[in-house]
Amino acid sequence: MRTYDLIQKKRDGNALTQEEIDWLIRGYVAGNIPDYQMAAFCMAVYFQGMTLEETTALTFAIRDSGDKLDLSEIKGLRVDKHSTGGVGDKTSLVVTPIVASLGVKVAKMSGRGLGHTGGTIDKLEAIPGFKTDLPVSEFKKIVNEVGLSIVGQSAELAPADKLLYALRDVTATVDSLPLIVSSIMGKKLAADDDCIVLDVKTGSGSFMKTLEKSRELAEWMVEIGKRAGKRMMALITDMGIPLGYAIGNSLEVVEAIETLKGNGPKDLTELCVALSAHILELAEKGSYAECELKVREAIDNGSALKTFAKAVAAQGGNAEWILTPESFPKAKYSYLVTAPESGYITSVNTEGYGVASLLLGAGRNTKDDEIDFSAGIYLHAKTGDYVEKGAPIATMYASKQELFASAEEKLLDSTAIGKTAPIAQPLILDVVE
Amino acid sequence: MRTYDLIQKKRDGNALTQEEIDWLIRGYVAGNIPDYQMAAFCMAVYFQGMTLEETTALTFAIRDSGDKLDLSEIKGLRVDKHSTGGVGDKTSLVVTPIVASLGVKVAKMSGRGLGHTGGTIDKLEAIPGFKTDLPVSEFKKIVNEVGLSIVGQSAELAPADKLLYALRDVTATVDSLPLIVSSIMGKKLAADDDCIVLDVKTGSGSFMKTLEKSRELAEWMVEIGKRAGKRMMALITDMGIPLGYAIGNSLEVVEAIETLKGNGPKDLTELCVALSAHILELAEKGSYAECELKVREAIDNGSALKTFAKAVAAQGGNAEWILTPESFPKAKYSYLVTAPESGYITSVNTEGYGVASLLLGAGRNTKDDEIDFSAGIYLHAKTGDYVEKGAPIATMYASKQELFASAEEKLLDSTAIGKTAPIAQPLILDVVE
Repeated sequence: MRTYDLIQKKRDGNALTQEEIDWLIRGYVAGNIPDYQMAAFCMAVYFQGMTLEETTALTFAIRDSGDKLDLSEIKGLRVDKHSTGGVGDKTSLVVTPIVASLGVKVAKMSGRGLGHTGGTIDKLEAIPGFKTDLPVSEFKKIVNEVGLSIVGQSAELAPADKLLYALRDVTATVDSLPLIVSSIMGKKLAADDDCIVLDVKTGSGSFMKTLEKSRELAEWMVEIGKRAGKRMMALITDMGIPLGYAIGNSLEVVEAIETLKGNGPKDLTELCVALSAHILELAEKGSYAECELKVREAIDNGSALKTFAKAVAAQGGNAEWILTPESFPKAKYSYLVTAPESGYITSVNTEGYGVASLLLGAGRNTKDDEIDFSAGIYLHAKTGDYVEKGAPIATMYASKQELFASAEEKLLDSTAIGKTAPIAQPLILDVVE
Repeated sequence: MRTYDLIQKKRDGNALTQEEIDWLIRGYVAGNIPDYQMAAFCMAVYFQGMTLEETTALTFAIRDSGDKLDLSEIKGLRVDKHSTGGVGDKTSLVVTPIVASLGVKVAKMSGRGLGHTGGTIDKLEAIPGFKTDLPVSEFKKIVNEVGLSIVGQSAELAPADKLLYALRDVTATVDSLPLIVSSIMGKKLAADDDCIVLDVKTGSGSFMKTLEKSRELAEWMVEIGKRAGKRMMALITDMGIPLGYAIGNSLEVVEAIETLKGNGPKDLTELCVALSAHILELAEKGSYAECELKVREAIDNGSALKTFAKAVAAQGGNAEWILTPESFPKAKYSYLVTAPESGYITSVNTEGYGVASLLLGAGRNTKDDEIDFSAGIYLHAKTGDYVEKGAPIATMYASKQELFASAEEKLLDSTAIGKTAPIAQPLILDVVE
């Protein structure tokens, strides 16, 4: 087999065989296939796409490119929840303790944020003492005892994905359905879970800008997961509006805690309840309606919050802060952004909000940037709200005052104000199972 | 400027500015832009193409990527002739002495063969003693004294083309009109000629398989050459049939000498006469008809052959052999290929004939392969000829008998024999000026 022939085959719009895809990924991970050939291949895939069969083969090749986690020592069904990434998306912090408190096991590997979207691991590190790089034995022990552990992605799991993603990121080949599907699912399937629930974001601030594209992404991931023997389902949810009011690591942890206490924003609460109930239903804890009732109970009776505090303590974090979230330090400076005119907020560019938060120090531009955990944005008004000229839209938090000007400009540029109230859109747009 | 943004811009079908293209090529030659980004860019160009403006900018950027030859010391108009490459194409060996004998100066840099097409430099090296790596001062001196010198491509001229070609060659991005145009013309324009005549091949065994594609290639190269201030014209000629009867280095030199003596095959002679007359017309040596007469005279009176012998002697080659071509050594072994059935040769795959010659040792598979100058194929029948079963089709020459079997198989596989004579096609299909 020659790499050249496989590039040419894909370039000419033909489907590769499973054997060819396996050979390509093995050769790339082994260092026998240079980056320039893989870059040309990825661009050919960008233009010619891949069939579901090819995408399945690519996903499995990525899954099999390194170590596989063996979690068979954990008692009970293991579930995972994955979001395709959004602005202000702290659902994992809420959903995982809820379902763990109701008897399923959550052994979760999570990523860091890069660019305008945040990562669960960064958010958890805003809790003082919280360790995200536990040995596997410790990870399994905590899941068995507490029901929940969240650690950073292991470098030994699906190494092909790391190599491919880094290459796609600098060659303008990220935005390709088969490459996105195989990247997410290749990584997820290398972990050893029984059920996977996907939260596929759509609209501004997500990978997939249209509902149709998002549905396709969800359908392919669910299908490929099932082919790997997993119980799968996906929600397609709107990222046209930031989730909740908080954007930024500490701010989002506090909002997640408030949601676990039953005091969270309505949109965030409803999405977390739905995700949790779907996970429990997949894990055969009852019908969807029964599971939804259990979820609301776990919030009301405080057991979900208690599970979160226990999990935090088990990973070395200060559990006191979880019970008294006012302990999280505020940023040194804050700045009020006000409405430049009166009217309805007709739409926001969620990605622009993410970038504004990045400018304040809440994220990374490059892998080596340090995060300012207390930096971020707290929104006072969202799409659909009416604001008077001069009324507060958002409070910004940062450690340096000079960061506010460009972040404010970005936020206001990303906020459209008009005379007519926009038509409200449901948060959960579709369910794929 | 960021490479990523330029890849994305091209990927999305937008035209790059001249400034952006300059920046890209400068950065690539300087080593600031890695191969993997350039490979993704080339694949994006493969799919999205480039406008004539972009292709012009790319050509000029390649031209300007290294040293430029200064040939102003040479007295008189300087001409160059370039072929897009074909099987058995020895026209440069015939055309350049003809036009030099008629008063234009030929200062030619030429390439080596790779794959199924031969290179003029390799053919010249079949003449014992012939040096192809002269210092520029010597090169100019010979052109001034003899009217003709042919040397190897300098590494300092248009280095961007070398880098880009090597990358395209392994990433399945050779076959793209703007990349072919800019590669050929970037190199040609870095040499310091006044007139350039192009021989654009079409059909099996050439880059461009259809007449339409070949015409587009010719038109773009002529237009871009004119924009650079050159006098330009192109012939589009058929590569559906090998040119002449000889394929292989010594064999082709001998056939070129016979053609310079007026004893050449009809197709080769007519193409050489046409190319020579067009060059002279561009150099204002008279009307096309007048120039054609002069060309035939230069063959008939022996002045073209004398010029070739002088040029060979000036570059250290044995000029005796030019006057007595039977001096060229024959290969140790020969093998007669015969017709497997009676009928007309209805078509041949010229590329297949090139590969058969390669298998006999006449070419290179990789840059480091050594060439067997005496190896090759001499055809006894070509497309349109009637052959009886068992009649000779070709004689093959090689230094090892075991090479004949696979070469014969390839040759016969590339030869179609049928009951009806094929419709003859003119050799010169179009003229672009």
